[in-house]
Amino acid sequence: MIDLRSDTVTKPTDNMRKMAYSAEVGDDVYGEDPTVNLLEDTAAEMLGKEKALFVTSGTQGNQIAALTHCKPGEEVILEANSHIYLFEGAAISALSGVQPRPLQGTRGAMNTEDVRNAIRADDIHFPETSLICLENTHNLAGGAILPLENMQEIYQIAQENQVAVHLDGARLFNASAASGISIKEYAKNVDTVQFCLSKGLGAPVGSIIAGTEEFIAKARKWRKRLGGGMRQAGIIAAPGLVALKENADRLVEDHKNAQTLAEGIANISGLKLENTVETNIVLANVQETGYTSDEFLDALQKQGVLASRFGTHTIRFVTHLDITKEAIEQAVAVMTRVARVQ
Amino acid sequence: MIDLRSDTVTKPTDNMRKMAYSAEVGDDVYGEDPTVNLLEDTAAEMLGKEKALFVTSGTQGNQIAALTHCKPGEEVILEANSHIYLFEGAAISALSGVQPRPLQGTRGAMNTEDVRNAIRADDIHFPETSLICLENTHNLAGGAILPLENMQEIYQIAQENQVAVHLDGARLFNASAASGISIKEYAKNVDTVQFCLSKGLGAPVGSIIAGTEEFIAKARKWRKRLGGGMRQAGIIAAPGLVALKENADRLVEDHKNAQTLAEGIANISGLKLENTVETNIVLANVQETGYTSDEFLDALQKQGVLASRFGTHTIRFVTHLDITKEAIEQAVAVMTRVARVQ
Amino acid sequence: MIDLRSDTVTKPTDNMRKMAYSAEVGDDVYGEDPTVNLLEDTAAEMLGKEKALFVTSGTQGNQIAALTHCKPGEEVILEANSHIYLFEGAAISALSGVQPRPLQGTRGAMNTEDVRNAIRADDIHFPETSLICLENTHNLAGGAILPLENMQEIYQIAQENQVAVHLDGARLFNASAASGISIKEYAKNVDTVQFCLSKGLGAPVGSIIAGTEEFIAKARKWRKRLGGGMRQAGIIAAPGLVALKENADRLVEDHKNAQTLAEGIANISGLKLENTVETNIVLANVQETGYTSDEFLDALQKQGVLASRFGTHTIRFVTHLDITKEAIEQAVAVMTRVARVQ
Amino acid sequence: MIDLRSDTVTKPTDNMRKMAYSAEVGDDVYGEDPTVNLLEDTAAEMLGKEKALFVTSGTQGNQIAALTHCKPGEEVILEANSHIYLFEGAAISALSGVQPRPLQGTRGAMNTEDVRNAIRADDIHFPETSLICLENTHNLAGGAILPLENMQEIYQIAQENQVAVHLDGARLFNASAASGISIKEYAKNVDTVQFCLSKGLGAPVGSIIAGTEEFIAKARKWRKRLGGGMRQAGIIAAPGLVALKENADRLVEDHKNAQTLAEGIANISGLKLENTVETNIVLANVQETGYTSDEFLDALQKQGVLASRFGTHTIRFVTHLDITKEAIEQAVAVMTRVARVQ
Repeated sequence: MIDLRSDTVTKPTDNMRKMAYSAEVGDDVYGEDPTVNLLEDTAAEMLGKEKALFVTSGTQGNQIAALTHCKPGEEVILEANSHIYLFEGAAISALSGVQPRPLQGTRGAMNTEDVRNAIRADDIHFPETSLICLENTHNLAGGAILPLENMQEIYQIAQENQVAVHLDGARLFNASAASGISIKEYAKNVDTVQFCLSKGLGAPVGSIIAGTEEFIAKARKWRKRLGGGMRQAGIIAAPGLVALKENADRLVEDHKNAQTLAEGIANISGLKLENTVETNIVLANVQETGYTSDEFLDALQKQGVLASRFGTHTIRFVTHLDITKEAIEQAVAVMTRVARVQ
Repeated sequence: MIDLRSDTVTKPTDNMRKMAYSAEVGDDVYGEDPTVNLLEDTAAEMLGKEKALFVTSGTQGNQIAALTHCKPGEEVILEANSHIYLFEGAAISALSGVQPRPLQGTRGAMNTEDVRNAIRADDIHFPETSLICLENTHNLAGGAILPLENMQEIYQIAQENQVAVHLDGARLFNASAASGISIKEYAKNVDTVQFCLSKGLGAPVGSIIAGTEEFIAKARKWRKRLGGGMRQAGIIAAPGLVALKENADRLVEDHKNAQTLAEGIANISGLKLENTVETNIVLANVQETGYTSDEFLDALQKQGVLASRFGTHTIRFVTHLDITKEAIEQAVAVMTRVARVQ
Repeated sequence: MIDLRSDTVTKPTDNMRKMAYSAEVGDDVYGEDPTVNLLEDTAAEMLGKEKALFVTSGTQGNQIAALTHCKPGEEVILEANSHIYLFEGAAISALSGVQPRPLQGTRGAMNTEDVRNAIRADDIHFPETSLICLENTHNLAGGAILPLENMQEIYQIAQENQVAVHLDGARLFNASAASGISIKEYAKNVDTVQFCLSKGLGAPVGSIIAGTEEFIAKARKWRKRLGGGMRQAGIIAAPGLVALKENADRLVEDHKNAQTLAEGIANISGLKLENTVETNIVLANVQETGYTSDEFLDALQKQGVLASRFGTHTIRFVTHLDITKEAIEQAVAVMTRVARVQ
Repeated sequence: MIDLRSDTVTKPTDNMRKMAYSAEVGDDVYGEDPTVNLLEDTAAEMLGKEKALFVTSGTQGNQIAALTHCKPGEEVILEANSHIYLFEGAAISALSGVQPRPLQGTRGAMNTEDVRNAIRADDIHFPETSLICLENTHNLAGGAILPLENMQEIYQIAQENQVAVHLDGARLFNASAASGISIKEYAKNVDTVQFCLSKGLGAPVGSIIAGTEEFIAKARKWRKRLGGGMRQAGIIAAPGLVALKENADRLVEDHKNAQTLAEGIANISGLKLENTVETNIVLANVQETGYTSDEFLDALQKQGVLASRFGTHTIRFVTHLDITKEAIEQAVAVMTRVARVQ
């Protein structure tokens, strides 16, 4: 099977497994797991933030950020197709009691004037705007990179209005690998940042959130309330460290593979690219083949290729660690056959 | 002062005051206030619903509806400029823990296909859609009447998907007076409905929510939790009964006055009508006068006319019980002078 | 009927009705109701607090206090039989997301060392203690007056630990009338206070919460979210003002009547007083009559006396504005007959 | 260091590490991790429940149970010294919006009549009781085993009142090992159960919750909202399987060691046992030594023994996988020296 459904499906590398096997561990609820501590320190250093916290998923990192930044009855500005808004089970309202204010962006980037206008004035009828969430790269926008200037302008608007900014950087390392802008530079323009070890970086489990020391102290308690406080978590932090060291630089290969895949798709009659491929995500529209996305996916699966439904006629492909150049070529061949059949 | 800020500013009529004075009362927490009971029965009858409940405001009615219909982590579809979404302090997320899914409507009416598409599929990443909220008339759309067919189609979609529908009918009597469609007919197309006694109907305090007997039993407990359980509430229910009996039919006068006002504004150089006036709300754009809305409002106030800011250059005027035809003419005269000055 | 179920059943006096009839009103959401403003200013002055806010019930006042003082995940210390804990539908957890920490008191007064020990240390497993709630007089303890020194000591402990103190003073005027200690003196020992206009003071609807200007500004927004923002609320604020002016001093009569009732009960064979009567509440145990409280209440009702069930064999009687000395004597006579029958 | 602070400090065994190294994994959010699936099936089978779910901690399991069983504004009966009430950061109120109703038990077991009386009647002022939580073994009661009959009686009361029962069985395997009653037999008397793989069973990370298929389907979504949905979680599920297979039976050794420790402590002048040792927890009172617990713990630590503070003069010792008989003897020797010094 060529599994292009998501970069979350990556299997841990042999080195990750070895490091899990030999990890020095302790009870992380007592702060005594040296491997977790090393991972958190390493991540904080890379991001240029005071402290970092190891959490079990990107969703947990994002939700803890909201819980720590916000109080019930406040409002959170975010992009209308962001993961936090569409794919986290309305957890931001269920757990933090805040109301999302979605703004339709362009390639995942909210218009800065829209952001400024969406910040609520002081009025008895209005919630207080307390948080702006960004997503870089932006999943539903096809792995689009949020321009650094967009982040800078939004951060300035936020600071002028005493509003915090959180970055859902589940795929921030993809943005950095593609743009050449360091993750530290991106992180400089937000108060808190979350990134996933378990997507393109290939670790089996886990994400990082980072911010000030005071923020992380509060976040740690919220993590405990959510049940994210683990014991000998070094077992999964160790592969996370491998992910950071060995897999950040190689993301450019995934991007090249995504380009190859995009070019292949562009040449298939009946398929249309829906995004400019900037990182490791390719969106294809299958409508002209006469298939729905579900039917097309079924046909692909029968020939050994997996991808994800993203809309009635839209399919998402994600390249990653376990996908070679050859696999891409084979996937293109399969799609060509499938598209022809109809 | 000619106060066109809102129909909430109406003073109780002398008959309302008399009925408050002489109201038969009891302890409504024990269900023993005969005036409250009469008001609730009267309202339920008018709406064609099993039961009704007297609450202290439209916001309270809407929030109790959400609390009763929904569970935390669910999603509520509503119009992007609806009162529940924009003007209730994010209470729907703070109290019910649900996430709003705002859809941009046309003159307050959501596109039915948009509604259908916004209902969430069954997926581990998605909240369950449990409620759709409608608003009729629609405040920010300038008192626009929600077409009955729009409500019917949405209700059918909702029922096919086991989703409840709540109507924020704060100004439902205005819709009915203008369209000739009974409030019962409107209410037939939703599960629960809220309307205000304190807006166009002129009562000093209070709103009604109505639905099934089971719904109202649960709603009554949520009202108690919110602190809306009152004692000798007959004192305010009595004017509410007067409002229902005496002021529903006369709303057509407010609508005529709004038409007169709209025509006046249309003839003033520099002012532009922003809405087709269907009921008692008139939106005017003042940009071409060179004024901002704040500046224009200040100038009006100095000459005895009050209206509301609705945007950087948009002003809202609302006609009501305490506004005569003469007051409208005077207001137009003032606006003409103010617009000329710049 | 001699209605001794609660002091909430008092009917508005003729003067209250007259003042409702003639009240000067405005839109209180805009802060323009002069009668509401006068009531709030009068109440703040009497309590020695910066600001006060008119709310629709004691429950609403208490819940707004918790919402304003606390954040989700914090803990609130309160007496195990307090109204907030037992009779407000778990609203404090539902709305504020805080966990109650009930401490069993003596005659409604928590032991100060218990309070000190219940304040949580700084630990990743513990919620932060953010609020202590007191109740004076204490309803379930039979209208017991919280000793001033108890309040003073708890307030000192609270301040040493940066914990706020809220007083549920639903019947604070009863405490003051009986003890001779001014409500201002009581209020000095808490950060915020709620009292009811609709219980012993006899107003038809409403309560007051008071605190600092900053607290009340936030509380006002929470009131709006709960739907407690009303329009021409002067209609009910006016009787509230009468209640404050005319009915505070006469509470001593209710207390005398309660004493008379208590003496009468003490002399009835089979009945036992359960509380030392300090204010307007009398608790009687009917077990030795062979009746359950439900049966005893039924028998009383048939002879024109109403009281409340407070336990399997405990009945509560509350004296108030509408209960004369003669009514008390008659109630005693009825009880004597009922107790004899079994 | 002889670490008797908790059985959470156990290091993964070599076999656990090997199984982590070689675990077959997949994306568990897609339900494709065979090792996680095997662990869940194995656990469900052992508990006699339809389905089980792997979560990252006991706290997460307990909180997901509350989120799935309850709605905001309901009440949860639990023991006054239970972990859910005292050690989970008030998460049950913060996340589920429910109010705890703590009942003081005897050796962790609530009196069944107290439970029956605490279930709320139907009244507008009362929350609905929707859940009863049990804890077996009971941590703060010194590892006391909840008698099976106590669980049976409470379950019957619960079923008569349509109330769910959840078992916090963080140390359920200790109860079973000591009592000879199977975990299936315990689980039969509750609707849902949580147990920890990471305490006495020695796994590095994780717990299990189990219940009906319908319950687990909802619980899975709540796990996702809390961020507990992991990817290649087989890496930590594999050691969990080892824990179940290899470490359940050997818990009797921990219990023997605890007995040895208890006897040693009983013989030390100045120390007093505070609990009857039934499983792996020993509570000692150090007051007569003249030390506070903090001072005693410091003195122990200097001589290589770690234990936990449980009160001003109470210290908790927990035996586990990494503690040998010799370590116990050495710990007793150290305590004897320390107690003598004062």
